[in-house]
Amino acid sequence: MKNKFIIGIDLGGTSLKTALFDARLKLISRKSFNTKSFDNKEKLVAGIVKSIEALAEEKGLSWRGIAGIGIGLPGPVDNLRGIVRFLPNIRGWKNVRLKNILENKFSFPVFLDNDAKLMALAEHALGRAKGANNALCVTLGTGVGGALILEGKLFRGKDNAAGEIGHLPINVDGPFCNCGGKACLEAYIGNARIALRARKLFGRRITLEELSGLAARKNKLAIALWQEVGSQLGVALSGMVNLLNLDSIVIGGGVANAGGMLFSRVKKTIKERAMSVQAKRVRVLKAALGSDAGVIGAAVLVKERLGYAI
Amino acid sequence: MKNKFIIGIDLGGTSLKTALFDARLKLISRKSFNTKSFDNKEKLVAGIVKSIEALAEEKGLSWRGIAGIGIGLPGPVDNLRGIVRFLPNIRGWKNVRLKNILENKFSFPVFLDNDAKLMALAEHALGRAKGANNALCVTLGTGVGGALILEGKLFRGKDNAAGEIGHLPINVDGPFCNCGGKACLEAYIGNARIALRARKLFGRRITLEELSGLAARKNKLAIALWQEVGSQLGVALSGMVNLLNLDSIVIGGGVANAGGMLFSRVKKTIKERAMSVQAKRVRVLKAALGSDAGVIGAAVLVKERLGYAI
Repeated sequence: MKNKFIIGIDLGGTSLKTALFDARLKLISRKSFNTKSFDNKEKLVAGIVKSIEALAEEKGLSWRGIAGIGIGLPGPVDNLRGIVRFLPNIRGWKNVRLKNILENKFSFPVFLDNDAKLMALAEHALGRAKGANNALCVTLGTGVGGALILEGKLFRGKDNAAGEIGHLPINVDGPFCNCGGKACLEAYIGNARIALRARKLFGRRITLEELSGLAARKNKLAIALWQEVGSQLGVALSGMVNLLNLDSIVIGGGVANAGGMLFSRVKKTIKERAMSVQAKRVRVLKAALGSDAGVIGAAVLVKERLGYAI
Repeated sequence: MKNKFIIGIDLGGTSLKTALFDARLKLISRKSFNTKSFDNKEKLVAGIVKSIEALAEEKGLSWRGIAGIGIGLPGPVDNLRGIVRFLPNIRGWKNVRLKNILENKFSFPVFLDNDAKLMALAEHALGRAKGANNALCVTLGTGVGGALILEGKLFRGKDNAAGEIGHLPINVDGPFCNCGGKACLEAYIGNARIALRARKLFGRRITLEELSGLAARKNKLAIALWQEVGSQLGVALSGMVNLLNLDSIVIGGGVANAGGMLFSRVKKTIKERAMSVQAKRVRVLKAALGSDAGVIGAAVLVKERLGYAI
């Protein structure tokens, strides 16, 4: 293992990121591909293969020099058998044995997992959840993703489906959610929902970046909207703090960049609403690894599954 | 251990239950004391001592014949050091080193824990959560208690405070809760809150037993109230199912006896609102051990802490 390399891949809604790591998880090189052209199963698989070949070629690596590949995917994954259940934006993608497909093309092992779980593995190994015993990692984006570190280990549940903080109801009644549920956290603070709320508030289309800019320039409507988002996230997290007696909550993803305003409202809500013992214990932190968390987590997964110390 | 006995004690709001078990957790004998007279710290400690002595005397047991004593208490407990943080209904009860106090009087080890956690230990060892890998145990009573079995073990969190499903908010806004929070599940479906709702609905005082009786006789108001209680519990549990990918939810306590109506509404709500993979996995079950769960769990705790197989 010592002289071998690891490739970490993070498949997102807009880009396929591929990165080469050494055995100590130092990032050596990276590439990013637009995923728009990968609109069906075959094209996506071909795209992943090409991205691996491009990275290996650039560094003059033979397949023998690669210990393994980890891939994070934005959907439910059978992590043990390497089957991707479905991907929201890729046609014909249902129960694809991606591990088998790729291992038939390459000579090294391939491991898959859900992207939120890999973000948590990365933050726990090298980022803000380092040393945490019980942590909830949250990613704010198109979806609101989550993963739990419990007793120092990623908690998966029987179907590798645990961690879905985005689908915790924060009201008995409320808007329908893409998951089929109702009043889920994601139905309020997923990117598209925030944008919709901003559009209603300002009477025009407005991006989340613009909304953050407006708030930074003291626009009252924008500030109020970010505070409401922070309160809603804070209510969900108060429940998590009470339920799991967490020591850390790590928040990442684009919306986390709304910055201090969102974080201070989340902290205020937890302080007001969570039980005193639990509220005193928990720290609310901003993710440290940013958009690299996915590829790093994929590399951590490879080391874990191959039985190497992180 | 083989020829020794275990005493399990369950301190509740109205009664102190003490039970003698053999090494295989077979219940040999039990006693129950009214807790009304135990209205301060000294009287409660004396009451516990007396209940132990009474049970041992009845069976002609010497202290040497007792492997240990377990005690469940309705409040936050430092389970490792045996300190009871506070008890809602006992004056002057703050950070009491109950383990030390009792071990100074007897020659056997004493272990303490929170009552909801002991109910979960009992249901996991001998009841409906037997064999479950990831289970949430809920007790419906004056308070709404909870405890989690994760990866086959009781999950405590850093401060032994995990499991508080009663303090999961089910709405962003709502009634204040006794815990200091807002819109917690307990603030809707704790016994006193249900009774208050019933009183408003019927325009008179009404007990929960009467409310269940009315519902059984097809009273529409009573049925609607139990269904609403079931929906509110179901919303909280849907979140738990999504978050923890649970295989079992075990519901016990007095209100659970409202029966089929409550359970069917809980199941319906989970089916409608939880994510499909997680909803398919989980079973919702009625606790098997009833009001014995507390003393049994206390005995299980003793075996666990002394390192004996359950």
